[in-house]
Amino acid sequence: MDSACSSPELPAYAEVRAAAARIAGRVLRTPVLANEDFNADTGAELFFKCENLQTGGAFKLRGATNAVLSLSDEQARRGVVTHSSGNHGAALARAARLRGIACHVVVPEGVNPAKLRNMEAQGARIHFCAPTMAARDALTAQLLEQTGAEPVPPFDDARVIAGQGTAALELIEDVADLQVLVAPTGGGGLLAGTALVGRAQVPPLRIFGAEPANADDAARSLAEGRRVTDVVPDTLADGLRATIGERNFAIIRRDVEAIWTVSEAAIVQAMRLAWERLKLVIEPASAVAIAAVLEQRQVLAGRKVGVILTGGNADLDALPWSVQSRNPS
Amino acid sequence: MDSACSSPELPAYAEVRAAAARIAGRVLRTPVLANEDFNADTGAELFFKCENLQTGGAFKLRGATNAVLSLSDEQARRGVVTHSSGNHGAALARAARLRGIACHVVVPEGVNPAKLRNMEAQGARIHFCAPTMAARDALTAQLLEQTGAEPVPPFDDARVIAGQGTAALELIEDVADLQVLVAPTGGGGLLAGTALVGRAQVPPLRIFGAEPANADDAARSLAEGRRVTDVVPDTLADGLRATIGERNFAIIRRDVEAIWTVSEAAIVQAMRLAWERLKLVIEPASAVAIAAVLEQRQVLAGRKVGVILTGGNADLDALPWSVQSRNPS
Repeated sequence: MDSACSSPELPAYAEVRAAAARIAGRVLRTPVLANEDFNADTGAELFFKCENLQTGGAFKLRGATNAVLSLSDEQARRGVVTHSSGNHGAALARAARLRGIACHVVVPEGVNPAKLRNMEAQGARIHFCAPTMAARDALTAQLLEQTGAEPVPPFDDARVIAGQGTAALELIEDVADLQVLVAPTGGGGLLAGTALVGRAQVPPLRIFGAEPANADDAARSLAEGRRVTDVVPDTLADGLRATIGERNFAIIRRDVEAIWTVSEAAIVQAMRLAWERLKLVIEPASAVAIAAVLEQRQVLAGRKVGVILTGGNADLDALPWSVQSRNPS
Repeated sequence: MDSACSSPELPAYAEVRAAAARIAGRVLRTPVLANEDFNADTGAELFFKCENLQTGGAFKLRGATNAVLSLSDEQARRGVVTHSSGNHGAALARAARLRGIACHVVVPEGVNPAKLRNMEAQGARIHFCAPTMAARDALTAQLLEQTGAEPVPPFDDARVIAGQGTAALELIEDVADLQVLVAPTGGGGLLAGTALVGRAQVPPLRIFGAEPANADDAARSLAEGRRVTDVVPDTLADGLRATIGERNFAIIRRDVEAIWTVSEAAIVQAMRLAWERLKLVIEPASAVAIAAVLEQRQVLAGRKVGVILTGGNADLDALPWSVQSRNPS
């Protein structure tokens, strides 16, 4: 509303609700699971929102679908452009395909072949670039210029944030009287969307982020009160290696109480426990949220806690506990 | 109705409905998942009933809970006895614990330690015997004599069959107009219960079983028109090694159209595909149903098919595709 303000436009709770209406029927309403063993470990009542069971195996379809369906027919006609090394690209391509429009994805050379196949299977037009941010941004700009298509970045985008928030919205609809929400954070799209939902409730929910200690740009950003962008991630949670976005940080700083960081060993242990107990294939990024919750008994005991499991795109040929057992660290 | 008949009492659809009412709230109503890739592979619309997400990681809790809750207070007071090498024992112990009664489980020496821990964690009183059927039956008889407890065998039991049928009942409630049901078969409790549900609908559903070719006692029994009990199972689907029960065979022979058998290689491949696509940890027994469906496009294309995934108690340290890649077969 303040046109003199130089900050980018931030989405609000109303946009999450609008996104939920817009994407209904296009995106799966994923189940929520509970588990007695995890409850015993934490003293809390935990409710896991299973976005690993989402179409495409990750929450990403929510934001991408909301962005594509938000376009006017005039905008949509020229297609969409993004850069991605995997899940967002596939999700955006799927949403674009279902609307019958083109989706250009700038992809770094050397990308994971399985993720490349996913994008191609959804009809993405792939444009390879050298694996640097400069090359990526140059090619993205060139494509935008050539095509007139709409940019839909993977997380620093109001439509994407609002779409990702719909997971938390479903969770609070399905579980009465939740008191706490926990979501992992990479670029911060999911956590920011979750925060918009939690803070709008009466009473507001407490919101926590979870992040690998080895990719703790969001935690450092909160601590320093400014966006820290020079962290070099070194984590097996490949879904959380992105640097927190501007809009994302603005929301997280305002609405998120703390970001909990966890070690790589804790991530592996939580991932294995989740597979054993929940019978879910979750990727390391999801395990980050579980690992954090397992270390926060003091905060969480006695409370009803929603935990968002982000995705299930794990590499079945390189399970981290097998690697660990060969190379104990 | 024929009192001159020497066959054991068979449960009917009414018993499945009664079981559903009895166990409501004690057993999880598991989610149903769909998957575009499996649909494309088969030309069918497949709906997977996720009993791997059931409490305890398997459908077994349904039958065990129904059996325990069927007992009069007088019967219940003396507890229950069963023999088990795992899932049924843990399920029965849990159901007994929740009713506050004793559960004795006769367990063969050398049992899988993880499964033993599960039984103990649920409060089972473990009685070890030599790993032969004679030793097992002798110790079971002795315990029944000593305690006056109620026997609850793992599958050849009307209460257990009726309880297992509640999974199919939920599935047809959740997915309108199903035409086919597919369930794996070991002892036949799940398949028999599923058949009771399917045949009672108007119009009746077509019911198929799925079995490892290397443990094909049910398929052979159907082919020969008599219970074949001398098959020596040699399959990684440890949940399907039991020999089909008497009541189970009587129902299956009456209501099941065919039992499809699948190779060990097909089981491994289906298990891996399910983990990748459904993001579910399923055990080999569940993969048997998927493997069968993947080979039956000719029967299933164009139909709405419910597939029951039995459980998720897989050994994360010995995934069959890792073993296969080291020892190609």
